Amino acid sequence: MVKIAILGFGTVGSGVAEVLKMNASSIAKRAGQEIDVKYILDIRDFPGSPFESLVIHDFEIIEKDPEVSLVVETIGGAKLAYEFTRRALLAGKSVVTSNKELVATHGVELLSIAAEKNVSYLFEASVGGGIPILRPLTNCLAGNEIMEIRGILNGTTNYILTRMFRAGLSFEDALAEAQALGYAEANPSADVDGIDAGRKTCILADLAYGYEVCPDQIAPIGIRSISAADVAGAEACGRVIRLIGRVLRREDGRVHLIVAPHLVSNTCPLACVEDVFNAIMVTGNAVDETMFYGRGAGKLPTASAVVGDVVDIVRNLPARRALSWVKAPADYVADNAELIYSFFIRAKADAAAAKAAFGDVTIISEEDGICVFLTPAMETAKAESCAKALDVLSFIRVLN
Amino acid sequence: MVKIAILGFGTVGSGVAEVLKMNASSIAKRAGQEIDVKYILDIRDFPGSPFESLVIHDFEIIEKDPEVSLVVETIGGAKLAYEFTRRALLAGKSVVTSNKELVATHGVELLSIAAEKNVSYLFEASVGGGIPILRPLTNCLAGNEIMEIRGILNGTTNYILTRMFRAGLSFEDALAEAQALGYAEANPSADVDGIDAGRKTCILADLAYGYEVCPDQIAPIGIRSISAADVAGAEACGRVIRLIGRVLRREDGRVHLIVAPHLVSNTCPLACVEDVFNAIMVTGNAVDETMFYGRGAGKLPTASAVVGDVVDIVRNLPARRALSWVKAPADYVADNAELIYSFFIRAKADAAAAKAAFGDVTIISEEDGICVFLTPAMETAKAESCAKALDVLSFIRVLN
Repeated sequence: MVKIAILGFGTVGSGVAEVLKMNASSIAKRAGQEIDVKYILDIRDFPGSPFESLVIHDFEIIEKDPEVSLVVETIGGAKLAYEFTRRALLAGKSVVTSNKELVATHGVELLSIAAEKNVSYLFEASVGGGIPILRPLTNCLAGNEIMEIRGILNGTTNYILTRMFRAGLSFEDALAEAQALGYAEANPSADVDGIDAGRKTCILADLAYGYEVCPDQIAPIGIRSISAADVAGAEACGRVIRLIGRVLRREDGRVHLIVAPHLVSNTCPLACVEDVFNAIMVTGNAVDETMFYGRGAGKLPTASAVVGDVVDIVRNLPARRALSWVKAPADYVADNAELIYSFFIRAKADAAAAKAAFGDVTIISEEDGICVFLTPAMETAKAESCAKALDVLSFIRVLN
Repeated sequence: MVKIAILGFGTVGSGVAEVLKMNASSIAKRAGQEIDVKYILDIRDFPGSPFESLVIHDFEIIEKDPEVSLVVETIGGAKLAYEFTRRALLAGKSVVTSNKELVATHGVELLSIAAEKNVSYLFEASVGGGIPILRPLTNCLAGNEIMEIRGILNGTTNYILTRMFRAGLSFEDALAEAQALGYAEANPSADVDGIDAGRKTCILADLAYGYEVCPDQIAPIGIRSISAADVAGAEACGRVIRLIGRVLRREDGRVHLIVAPHLVSNTCPLACVEDVFNAIMVTGNAVDETMFYGRGAGKLPTASAVVGDVVDIVRNLPARRALSWVKAPADYVADNAELIYSFFIRAKADAAAAKAAFGDVTIISEEDGICVFLTPAMETAKAESCAKALDVLSFIRVLN
């Protein structure tokens, strides 16, 4: 029997305890032995909870208990979670987490400590919630050079965008609805401003290419500015709008990372991803296009991914599951001004002015002095300079 | 350096050699050492091929070469492939294959020999071609009870159905087109009659529940009878038709396996899967719905999955990757007459007769003496007996 501890008894942590209990027998069968939760660390008590008796408040008890060989960190954030993860790894315990912020910001250090101590640090749940994506990316697709990754990585923004398209809601109303349903927080910035998607995009790039990209190297563009007019314009050209986290490999070995709203063709599988679902499309030079779809958040789906990592570690003990990436060369992340896109533009202009500014454009509509059009594919920097000639209301990338 | 042999230098076998060469450096990095193809076994010679010098015609050379620790079987079929796989495993060599027929029919025996000899027998490529599905199912989703699997598992039939819907082609014309494009064989029976999808459905059930289901326990229903009128009727109720391989777990622990055309709602992600692409939707009691999408066939995509297995084995040497399932209890596979469905029916009847026969039906259309309707959800056996009261032209399951 393997004894584990859960740090943080919030949504995900309690989900992990629940899944381990609900599916105990099949999990034991797959892991090769029973998995027993010995401690649950939280600042709160949980009177009446079936797990009440396991709750403790002092991490040192876990750290010093040689019987605990694996720790599940579901505290979140990069402060206490960072300290406890470090100390657990240094104490020779494997750690499994759903904490994208911690992995994206301190992954290099924590993975190197894990290697040094010959234990595992796994985080399948940190990207795409319950969707198996990190293991397939590093394992099943190991025969490929990864050419590109495009992901719908944030369920809250995908719900908002879906409602704007399906129900004609404004951004504000769709956000309010998402908050009422508990999909969005009172302060929705991490979601709607693309910060959460940015962290996940970094983790995907780290694993795909072995070089660290820090969240502060991305300037995410969120969805606050998406208007009903943008929705109408996208529909008029057979597309939807999705917040896409994109990792693109260049010929010169450098990479582009971008998080921004993109127009996505209705014929692209990513356009079928609605509501709070997530999907990650990975393109390899042998497998071509693959896509992984499912619930990107939520108590049990996220717990499913955490427990999958726990089972993987236990089944393979004493061997460790090795993931790693290293600090990248200074100029590894390329300037997105060089990224080539066709752009969806709404501007106070007529078709002639649009053509004059951008050349061979495709006019979607022209009325009330506002022209909606698609530009030819061009470098982002060039598109931005061309846009100066017009009074631009919307400037959105089109995913080819 | 690990030395391997490839058995059968056809489409997949040559793709494996190509991928190992094309991505040699990144593969070596991920595998922890170089992977070198020492022999290629085929009855043919390949003058002019870059691999010409590796071609041999006698399996015994591979069997008796202690330097060869891993064999890739891409011969296909269950005769020679069966003999060579058995002998390779008995000789203490791990085997990786894309051979769904062999795995579905002899998996129990071959996996037990692999266990006995402490080597691996992996076959990610046998289901969904390049799509990572078997490893996620057995590994990433290990925390779940698998409730249901629904897959578009055959690219040829999906291409035909896509063309019938998108271009209005008849089944015959779409098949001819698929044959002209090399997607379908001169004798298309294995594809269009659901035999290939049936084998893959068995492998998914074997891995999901640990009990063997043999292809001869499924009576697959193919797509030959799908007509333009069915396509029109499906479109009229917001659905498409897909050949679905379905594994459904019952309360009593038994399972239903069915391979048949199903109407799929346009809002279901499976409906977005077009042309030769495959997708497998797995529902777990923790993760809820996940879907895995990509190319289900083709030289490099299939090779990608094979090479992924090869890398997984090499990276983890000397440990073996253990998969297994056992013979099932006699009554393990339940009678699909008990499966509950709503049915799409076209019959020479009027709405009144349809109602009289099936009760509370939903009429889709009624013209020229033909009524198209959806029945309420009912046991298949009951629907079949109700259908006797009408002159039924089409009887197709509706995926809920």
